[in-house]
Amino acid sequence: MSKNCSFGYQAWIKSQPSKFLPKVTGIDCFALEECKRGLSQLGDKENDTTVTLALSQELSSESYTLEGSPGNLRIEAGCETGLLYGVYGFLFRLRIGESIESISASEKPAVSMRILNHWDNIDGSVERGYSGRSLFFDNGQIGYDPDRLRDYARLLSSVGINQISINNVNVTLESAKLVTEEKLPDVAKIADIFRPFGIKLIIAVHFESPILLGGIKTADPLDDKVAKWWQETAATVYRYIPDLAGFLMKADSEFRSGPASIGRTQAEGANVIAKALKPFGGTIYWRCFVYNCMQDWRDTKTDRPKAAYDYFYPLDGQFDDNVIVQIKHGPMDFQVREPNSPLLGAMSKTKQGLELQIAQEYTGQQIDLYATSTQWEEILNHPVTDNRNTRDLINQEVKAIVAVSNTGNDDNWTGHLLAQANLYAFGRLAWNPSLTADQVTKEWIALTFGNEPNILNPLLDMMLKSRLVYEKYNAPLGIGWMVNINHHYGPSVDGYEYMKWGTYHRANNTAIGVDRTQKGTGYTMQYQPYVQNLYENKDTCPENLLLFFHRLPYDYKLRSGRTLLQYIYDTHFEGVEDVESFIKTWNSLKEYMPEEAYVQVKKRLDAQLENAKEWRDVVNSYFFRKTGISDEKGRKIYE
Amino acid sequence: MSKNCSFGYQAWIKSQPSKFLPKVTGIDCFALEECKRGLSQLGDKENDTTVTLALSQELSSESYTLEGSPGNLRIEAGCETGLLYGVYGFLFRLRIGESIESISASEKPAVSMRILNHWDNIDGSVERGYSGRSLFFDNGQIGYDPDRLRDYARLLSSVGINQISINNVNVTLESAKLVTEEKLPDVAKIADIFRPFGIKLIIAVHFESPILLGGIKTADPLDDKVAKWWQETAATVYRYIPDLAGFLMKADSEFRSGPASIGRTQAEGANVIAKALKPFGGTIYWRCFVYNCMQDWRDTKTDRPKAAYDYFYPLDGQFDDNVIVQIKHGPMDFQVREPNSPLLGAMSKTKQGLELQIAQEYTGQQIDLYATSTQWEEILNHPVTDNRNTRDLINQEVKAIVAVSNTGNDDNWTGHLLAQANLYAFGRLAWNPSLTADQVTKEWIALTFGNEPNILNPLLDMMLKSRLVYEKYNAPLGIGWMVNINHHYGPSVDGYEYMKWGTYHRANNTAIGVDRTQKGTGYTMQYQPYVQNLYENKDTCPENLLLFFHRLPYDYKLRSGRTLLQYIYDTHFEGVEDVESFIKTWNSLKEYMPEEAYVQVKKRLDAQLENAKEWRDVVNSYFFRKTGISDEKGRKIYE
Repeated sequence: MSKNCSFGYQAWIKSQPSKFLPKVTGIDCFALEECKRGLSQLGDKENDTTVTLALSQELSSESYTLEGSPGNLRIEAGCETGLLYGVYGFLFRLRIGESIESISASEKPAVSMRILNHWDNIDGSVERGYSGRSLFFDNGQIGYDPDRLRDYARLLSSVGINQISINNVNVTLESAKLVTEEKLPDVAKIADIFRPFGIKLIIAVHFESPILLGGIKTADPLDDKVAKWWQETAATVYRYIPDLAGFLMKADSEFRSGPASIGRTQAEGANVIAKALKPFGGTIYWRCFVYNCMQDWRDTKTDRPKAAYDYFYPLDGQFDDNVIVQIKHGPMDFQVREPNSPLLGAMSKTKQGLELQIAQEYTGQQIDLYATSTQWEEILNHPVTDNRNTRDLINQEVKAIVAVSNTGNDDNWTGHLLAQANLYAFGRLAWNPSLTADQVTKEWIALTFGNEPNILNPLLDMMLKSRLVYEKYNAPLGIGWMVNINHHYGPSVDGYEYMKWGTYHRANNTAIGVDRTQKGTGYTMQYQPYVQNLYENKDTCPENLLLFFHRLPYDYKLRSGRTLLQYIYDTHFEGVEDVESFIKTWNSLKEYMPEEAYVQVKKRLDAQLENAKEWRDVVNSYFFRKTGISDEKGRKIYE
Repeated sequence: MSKNCSFGYQAWIKSQPSKFLPKVTGIDCFALEECKRGLSQLGDKENDTTVTLALSQELSSESYTLEGSPGNLRIEAGCETGLLYGVYGFLFRLRIGESIESISASEKPAVSMRILNHWDNIDGSVERGYSGRSLFFDNGQIGYDPDRLRDYARLLSSVGINQISINNVNVTLESAKLVTEEKLPDVAKIADIFRPFGIKLIIAVHFESPILLGGIKTADPLDDKVAKWWQETAATVYRYIPDLAGFLMKADSEFRSGPASIGRTQAEGANVIAKALKPFGGTIYWRCFVYNCMQDWRDTKTDRPKAAYDYFYPLDGQFDDNVIVQIKHGPMDFQVREPNSPLLGAMSKTKQGLELQIAQEYTGQQIDLYATSTQWEEILNHPVTDNRNTRDLINQEVKAIVAVSNTGNDDNWTGHLLAQANLYAFGRLAWNPSLTADQVTKEWIALTFGNEPNILNPLLDMMLKSRLVYEKYNAPLGIGWMVNINHHYGPSVDGYEYMKWGTYHRANNTAIGVDRTQKGTGYTMQYQPYVQNLYENKDTCPENLLLFFHRLPYDYKLRSGRTLLQYIYDTHFEGVEDVESFIKTWNSLKEYMPEEAYVQVKKRLDAQLENAKEWRDVVNSYFFRKTGISDEKGRKIYE
């Protein structure tokens, strides 16, 4: 690593001097350099082993094999990027102590688009960023440290991420200019840095660019001048960046303009850009996060999670083949617990992207420990029909796995050191969705802290539990949204309750929740029959989603026999106790790790404990004040 | 008026051509020019009447007499500023149709310090400003339109305001520099503009200026270097502005440093600056808005309105005689309904200032109609003991009447055209606190719209009601704070409920309010016995303050026989109906006023109606959800 030798900066590809340094041979390519570079951090003297890199026509692009034998390790791949992945895969195995002769692997990515979206603003801030400032922009312009950006590229490439968008989907007039000749020379320099690592750039664009930049009176996708503007713009962009992956669009969403605002469909909006990108092999990633963000809270018919399906499902078959319809998990918005979007897999003639969030917007903001891999594993296991789950959609309907990045210019990239595991896990699961949270977390711990059981086991246990612990002290049973407005950290039970965002729990003195069944808003009807039946019925609905789908009285008996209210109290007390036990665990690990790592995480855990207590007390007081019913176990609830 | 001939810009001193133009004679002074200038806007040809200006040793400074006789009007005053007030007083009377010979008046200000505080930031924004940008600052520096500033000075002088602070009490590093030679030449130019109008400048200063600007390691008021720094600074400032009124300080308040943070008293903090200003005749205005803004909501002992008294009362007698202790109304913070601060009049050996707010921070933000004069009249009538009320303190303990300005660079100065009446009323009531809201509002209407009964009566009625109407649809019975956080417009019943600001209603399913009696937080004990007894007892407590002092069950019977809950429902329905009737009234006035004035106010009233409905529905739903009790009259409450 070039700039910074602090523990966190080196992340999971840190120096770890061991005994030997094999000779590297084979085709002359970037992967070969990277292999030598990586090995040089692991060894200090040559031995008589050899690593050989070779292309193989039998392997598909990006796939690779590792084949160890006494004194030799052979890396074969379908292309140079595949060799690079092979090299990183080999180095990972070395780093966790495998011996060359025992290494044997055959790896193939499940999906060809493994994408990180950065929500970085031109002013250098990061929307929903909790790890410092942007790695790409500074003070109103493109501005970066090239060495650091190369280190970042290596980090992403080491886990197989192969596309990144660099600017916020909330495109401003200034960032809209990234597709103009004013900015393209600088954007191209970023592309140059990422290219050797097999990573292509995406640029987030503004729907009204034809107006803002082109001086045309409309952005109407059916207007010839508009189509021509996008074509010319694409031609210009590809002159500078011939391998650009494409454009990313947030349209008709949260006060942003889009085709709906001028009476056109989302497909018409996407296709005009798709056609412009097509000659250059580019893709338009079109977000489905379209809903009414000016809802009147008094309106109980409109139901926000229904919106994406309502807008997009009728358009199945109308999108060009280089459109990826990017579907957010969940249908509400990145809450700690939501069902899958009913849109996911619903359209057989439309290429889909699954959009996740690594940035912990609603899940602790990289102050609270939260292993996203456990949530993603559940998402992948979500049923779509009686015989398919989300994982089965991958490389079928779902052509892209996308996530909002959690990185910034903090020394350790992710603010919370342990949140590095979430970036790592995203790459690994996008590559291979069959991996479990347990597996990828173990890998990350071993690469980062070593795989001695004294660290591995307690830390693994703590991280795998972390998501459920966070959920315990937050909004109960999938209801979501009980957060402070705007910044989204900490509790405010009624914070969004009377606002225009369409996110209501409608708690009164006897019951809570929105009935989203057929008798209610009808949201359940958007799912395939099997899932529909599952959610429609209180008795079959997964209990952790009960309040997403049903309105229930506080004395509703859960499967455990507890009332809903007592469940709320219990989990909120438990959440705090669990964080206390995290702190104990972490303290017990102190002797096994660098002081720097210990201290970094310790501070976050202490802040998390404060947050957990605040959630516990605010949520419990809120419901106690509403119901007048005390905790059965007599614990302290503030009046 | 120099720059702008729009209706609102000319405010209450607008051109109003009439028939005659008397000759002006007397001593050669600025008041004489102003008299000619004012008359030239009212007449277009000379007649044979004369106005004579003369100084009189029998009149105290700033006092004046107007004595009309056939063909002549004599203005006498104790000083040139008094003559200026006399001129404005004469012009007012002419403008509303009095004839020269019938004019007879003898005016004397009740208090010598009638002060406007501007909360203007150096970047040009105005904290709690609802009328555009700053009149003094622009884009990080002093920046203004001198013609406009002169017009502003005339406006303020015409109602007797004689001191203004120009920068926000939340002083930044940049605005702290206003007392340095870098900025003083420009500040002095502003002083030059206001000086002829009898208005002196105040500069808001930073407690840590000795550190920030002086390079001293401490701001400790007992440190000799700190004392010396303030002395030298005062000397420098007075070299540029020999008639500066003084400095204004917000210390130990809302994250700002102050003497308490280094173990010194507020008196020690104030006196070191007082001593520095003393040789130059300057005053330090020291705000009492000191409280714990990091309170834990779980803490029911700490009670925010007690804070000012707790901090300042024990220091009575310790403040230098050029310290004005500036006491905010109310003890909480500018809510629509609060009792007076118990500190007001409690200290017999300390000079006090009464701080009001013209800016409608919590009272409709110059979108909603709100005649502050009606509230101020009540404040002045508040009892302090069994035989004194607030009005009786004026020019006794209370040496200054201060208000936070509601002005900005909007064409009409105050955003809402009718909010001009609040600026007008502040000046008039600071001059003569015995005036009633009815009187000053009538004056303002007559000066602005003319005094035809078709306009005067309906508009007066609407304006005098406006405060009670606003109160109806807001937080009930003095409990306050049910507002959206940060910006403070619109309802959020639990918005501040679990925050650190010390503002809690603690509503549960059976009761609401904080017990501030002897049995509760003991806040009532800070008042003089007569007032203490009044507030302590539910039956004698003014009903509109019931929930400020008492925790009450929803079925508590008010004097009307209604329950507390039904009162909440009733007032919230009525509030909306009242705003609807305002709109009807306003529409009926359309024919009597310039289209421009009609349209300006109409837009605001329509927005107010939306706000009133939002308040009605959110507050009613909140309490309906908490109690499950429907409106007795069956009106719509959203579930």
